Parts: sequence; structure tokens; C-alpha cells
Amino acid sequence: MDRNEPAPAIITLTTDFGLRDAYVGSMKGVILSIHPHARIVDITHELPAHRILPAACLLREACPRFPPGTVHVAVVDPGVGGQRTPLLLKIDNRFYVGPDNGIFGLLMADLPLQGAWSLEKREHFLHPVSDTFHGRDVFAPVAAHLAAGTPPNAFGPAAKDPSSISFPAHHEEAGTLKGQILWVDRFGNCMTNLSDRIVSRWARGASFTVRTASKKMAGISTTYESTPEGEALSLINSMGYLEIACNQARADLALGLREGDPVVLERLATHDGNT
Amino acid sequence: MDRNEPAPAIITLTTDFGLRDAYVGSMKGVILSIHPHARIVDITHELPAHRILPAACLLREACPRFPPGTVHVAVVDPGVGGQRTPLLLKIDNRFYVGPDNGIFGLLMADLPLQGAWSLEKREHFLHPVSDTFHGRDVFAPVAAHLAAGTPPNAFGPAAKDPSSISFPAHHEEAGTLKGQILWVDRFGNCMTNLSDRIVSRWARGASFTVRTASKKMAGISTTYESTPEGEALSLINSMGYLEIACNQARADLALGLREGDPVVLERLATHDGNT
Amino acid sequence: MDRNEPAPAIITLTTDFGLRDAYVGSMKGVILSIHPHARIVDITHELPAHRILPAACLLREACPRFPPGTVHVAVVDPGVGGQRTPLLLKIDNRFYVGPDNGIFGLLMADLPLQGAWSLEKREHFLHPVSDTFHGRDVFAPVAAHLAAGTPPNAFGPAAKDPSSISFPAHHEEAGTLKGQILWVDRFGNCMTNLSDRIVSRWARGASFTVRTASKKMAGISTTYESTPEGEALSLINSMGYLEIACNQARADLALGLREGDPVVLERLATHDGNT
Repeated sequence: MDRNEPAPAIITLTTDFGLRDAYVGSMKGVILSIHPHARIVDITHELPAHRILPAACLLREACPRFPPGTVHVAVVDPGVGGQRTPLLLKIDNRFYVGPDNGIFGLLMADLPLQGAWSLEKREHFLHPVSDTFHGRDVFAPVAAHLAAGTPPNAFGPAAKDPSSISFPAHHEEAGTLKGQILWVDRFGNCMTNLSDRIVSRWARGASFTVRTASKKMAGISTTYESTPEGEALSLINSMGYLEIACNQARADLALGLREGDPVVLERLATHDGNT
Repeated sequence: MDRNEPAPAIITLTTDFGLRDAYVGSMKGVILSIHPHARIVDITHELPAHRILPAACLLREACPRFPPGTVHVAVVDPGVGGQRTPLLLKIDNRFYVGPDNGIFGLLMADLPLQGAWSLEKREHFLHPVSDTFHGRDVFAPVAAHLAAGTPPNAFGPAAKDPSSISFPAHHEEAGTLKGQILWVDRFGNCMTNLSDRIVSRWARGASFTVRTASKKMAGISTTYESTPEGEALSLINSMGYLEIACNQARADLALGLREGDPVVLERLATHDGNT
Repeated sequence: MDRNEPAPAIITLTTDFGLRDAYVGSMKGVILSIHPHARIVDITHELPAHRILPAACLLREACPRFPPGTVHVAVVDPGVGGQRTPLLLKIDNRFYVGPDNGIFGLLMADLPLQGAWSLEKREHFLHPVSDTFHGRDVFAPVAAHLAAGTPPNAFGPAAKDPSSISFPAHHEEAGTLKGQILWVDRFGNCMTNLSDRIVSRWARGASFTVRTASKKMAGISTTYESTPEGEALSLINSMGYLEIACNQARADLALGLREGDPVVLERLATHDGNT
């Protein structure tokens, strides 16, 4: 291997297909039959079935970390075979292939959209094209041809207004900032819709408390270990959002938290520089 | 990378080992120690434990989609260490390594069997050979040596009559076709043992209904979206089998369906070309 | 591909991150952005959350099977952001990157430790370094730089006394050997803390029985098939430890066994060479 020569194209896969079935294996076979040098990287196949927002969050966090030129295939596709368009996007020098249903919406909101194409040229599909599995018959072959050098505009005409998606809104009132639990992760950590930036702008350097239905916490901690084992705390997580967590325990179980539950920040009268 | 030179050998893994334990990691280490250039592709490690038919279905669907020359290792092996033979098959220019217990039976039924060898030459195994983990000690090293260029007949003598497997039978009676639920997938879609071909030959262009214990559906739909959200429908799935599904919901839960449950098609008197 | 040239560097990943979240995808992106030729191999992301001993067992079994030079990243890190040191070890010509909390302790106990470094040179980290996700910001980038050729001592000074870990003790009394269930695997097999060597030294060629709270078994069997389907047996598993299993059934459910439960071996009066 000459370290200076370009590395083989990377194609990542992100789906809600799980691994009990043949879906993922079939996609991999289709890709490697078209482009045997492709390097397939699994991001995950364990996204919650049919849900767009968790998929959009995960893609926003993980995909931009791959090298420019990476082809990201993402399939959470409850409308497969229906009216939604199959899509190819170029965002910040990475390519994204999947259904036009908002899963790429958070990426587009934050990073430069450099191109969008409707996948209409059926000669790049696997035939016969099934009505229920575009992952195998549309998205995998398009990704493989793209990684093998076919230019983006060979797959179809420019797509207008790819679907967007947004977080549930937060609310500011006198002295309070109201958000909600957006996602409970593998460890039971409860991420909210309140970004570091939203919290900082609202707090303006003042101290505040963080409150769920059952628990009040003092401001923002920096590490899980800053409270005793099993105790709750709030922190800015590695994606940059306010999160309710417990040191070495599940915050969702300990505090009875679920997606959609409210989280309220209340500014304290005293100003002690707590941020 | 020169796109014209051959891609490194692909070895796929399909097992019921799950990922809580060291089994899969050990197999990968053994393969890469023997053949450091091999590209390992996970098909799945989440097959239901010890069950041959679901494994055979998945392998039948996914493995032929990989390029010729691919080495597929499949281990669902309740009889490990017992009387069953370890096997190497060549089917339609792909290689298959695993126990002789029927997991390759559906592949053999549909595609040309070009060779079958008993894995008897212990010099290609990892020693000491355990009695309970042939995935690591027999199948992984054989796959690696094969991918590295050792010819198939170096692993042992020709194998006679590799084990086959078949779907549970369907039944045709006056005006009805009776099948059963074969597999419930990740989304709760219920695949039957009735292939597109069986259904078409039986229907002869006539309209029919599809009935489970709790629900009657009209003929075959083409997409999930063809019914309102949450409603049941029947369709030919991406593997070519009749499936009971719900639009954006789990058919197994909505209709109370489980593996083995009957599905009955009934021809209608009128002929309106419904297909 | 020239079979004689060195294969691209292998980086394996072993975590308790699961695959519902972006954690694993982010680590892969970070690695490939630093070292696009790296070959990432998933060992597992399904380790039980926050538990050191199961992680240490799995790493001990799987990692040494990879080729010399492999970079193994392991992240089970309940103390992330706290006092524990991030660590790089060289053990028997493989590299290990992860937190200094004992996960590499069983490897160090059995294999030659050839170097240990504290990861202190922050120029090799991803910035800003989060306090809650060193997998992405510390361990992944260090592994990528290491695989790309940065020498181990460029990452920080020598680390003294990396954390060790040990199995719960076993007890020998007159005619009995008492151990416990250490781990229940995917199939319900119950591995104990009694190694083949401990058992052999204690038994000295004599016959013995193996007893759990609800079941007594005669000595050591060699294969699952040596008892009727569903029946319990004890055997030396593929990792070299005494295990309680059932032929094609889950021993944990059949015998009501859980981690920590006692397993007692009792020597029989007669000597019949049972080993």
C-alpha cells in the first residue's frame, strides 16, 4: 500500500433495518457487485423504525466527521414506494443518498448544500425495482455507481427544495427556558432540544436550576463523576445539547423521564458566574 | 488504488452468535491473522439462535448478491462438535463455508451447485480445535485460507448429498390456497411461504382475498402507502413472497400474527384481472 | 493488490455504546478522516454498559487473535472526564487504546506488557475535547494517528502501573471446589470463574460432580450433543473455562442461573479416570 495514493471510496450505511433480516446484507452485496473496491462502513442499522428525527440527529452528528468524498447512504423510509422522491445531496463535500423525507434536514440546516438531484435515471437501479425495498434497488446501486465515479448529475435532474425538518420549539418566558426531552440514549441519558447556544444566550452568565417533573438540579456540571454515583445532573453533552444524566445509572429510569417530557431552566436571583 | 486491479477477497459472516460475547471478534481475528488483506463484511450476527430455516432464507436472499468469488461463512450450528460434517460448497461461483445442517439448502435448491467438500484436512484448522466453537477453529480459518488462494479440494474429499431444507408445504383446495406465516421481520411484516409464482399459478388472473384469523384483505397491494396509516394489506415483498403488512405499523401486533399462523387465499367468483 | 505488500492498518472497536446513537459512527468518521486507509473492524458495541469485567474477558479472548500491529480501541468508560487516565498499551505486539480502568487487565495478566503510555499530548486529540465522550475525542484520534505511523511515545510519558483486574476468587475445601457463574452468554450458557487448569489441578484425575443450586451433573462432557436435547451438562468452553450449558436450550433459564450464583465441584470416592 502506498500511503500517498487515494484510499478506496467509503460508503457508509445508516438504516432502521435491524439485523434479523436480509435487508442489510442484500444492500452490501449489491454495492460490492457494482463497485468491488468500495469500503462499506456500518454507522448503524438500529435506528428506531420509521422515525425521521432520531435518524436526522444521528446523521447530523456522525456523517460530517467522515472524509470529504464519502458517500453516506441513509434509509429510514416509511413512505417507500409512494410519493416521496429518492434523493442525492451534496452537503459540505460529502454525498448523501436516501429518501426525501427530512432525514438529511438537520445536515442541510447547518452545512452548505452544494447540490441536490432527484434519482430518476432508472438505468442506475437494480431491476426489477421492488416497491418496498429501495435500499437495495435504488439507494445501494446509486451509491455504488457514485463511489465508482459516475457524476451526480447522471442520476437525474436537480431536485428542488429537499425536505427539511426541525426540532420541537423551545419557549422562553420571564426567567425560565422551557425545553423537552428529545432522545433517550443507550445509557439512559436524556438529551433535550436545548443547545449550548440557546442555553448560554438565555442565561447571560447567570446561575440557573434545571428541573424535570421529579427533580431539581443546580446548573450545568461538566462530568458524570461530579455527582455521587447514581445521582442526577445536567450537562452539555458531546453533541452540544443540554442533557439530564445520572452518574453510572440510567437517568430515564431514575427520574421517570421519557421523550417529550418537559425540562425547565429557571434563572436564579444571584449572579455567581455559574455557566 | 488502481481500479483495474482485482479487489481484495471478500469474506462475509452470518451467524447467530450475537454481539454480547467474544465469538464474532475471535473469528475476525483468526481470519485476519491468516489473510491480512481479507475484507470482512458482516451480514448479520443476530439470527435467531439455533434455527436453520431463518438462516437459510437470509443466506438465500443476501449471499448471491455479492460478487463471484466471495467467501460466505455461515454459522448456525446447534450440532457443533457432534455428527454433522463441516462443509465447503461452491454455488453459482460463490463459496459457502459452514456446518452441513441445511443452512445452505435453499441456495442449493435454486442455484447451480458446482462443488461440495467435507472439511477434513485438519492442517487448515486452528489448533487445539474446540468441540463447541467451530466458527473460530474450523470455518474461519478455512474461509481465510480459501480466500488467500488455497484450492477447494485441498480442504477434504468431495461431500455427498449436502443437507437440504424446504419450506413448510402449502395446500391448494377448491378455490383456496393455504399457506402460513414463515417469518416476522424487524418491522412486524409477516412473510408467508407463498411465493409470487405459487400465488400467480394458483390465481390464474382471478381476483382473490387474503385472510388471516382476524382480518380479510382484498388481493395484492403494491406499496405500504396504498392503505391508510395503520391499516393491513397483503403484498409481494422484496424477496418475492406474499407478506401481510401494515402501513407504518406492525402487522404482527395489529393482527395478532405469529410464525406458523395460517394465511388463506380465496378466489373470487368475478374475474377482473386483479393481479 | 500485491499480496506481498503490507495490508492496511487494522483498527478494531470494542465498546458498550450500542448502536441506537451516533457514538460509534462518530468514532469511525474521526478515524477515517485522520487515516483514510485504516481498516475498521467492529468487535462489538453491545458490551453491557459500564461493566469492566465482561469487557476485560471479551478483549482477552478476541484481541490477541488479530495480527501483530493491530490497534485495538476499547471504550467502557464509566469514569469518562474524571480522574482515570487515558492509556495506550503495547501487549504482545498489539496496541490497546482506552481508559485506564482495568479493561485491559486480563490481557496484561497473561501476555507480555511491552509498553504503557499516558495519553497526555493533546495535539493528537480532537478539539474541543468533550468531557463525556473520549471515545470520539481522545481514543479514536490517537488510534488513527498510531495506525498511521505516529510512534507510541509521541502520545505521552510512560504510564506507571496500569490498572489490573481479576476474577472473583474460587475456593478449595476438603473434596470440593467452589466457583461462581461469571457470565451468561447469548445462548444462555453459563461460564464460571473456574479455568480448565484450576479444575484439572484440583481434580487430579479423579471423577467429580458439578452442582448448581438446582442440578447435579456428572463431570465434564465434551459436546452439547452428549446429553439429550434440553438436558444440562458441564463442559470446558472454547475460552477454557468450566461452563454449565444445555443441549439446544438456555441453561440460565432451565436451571435458574444468574451471574454470581455458586457452582460446586465434588470429588467422588472412586477413581475411574474421568477427566
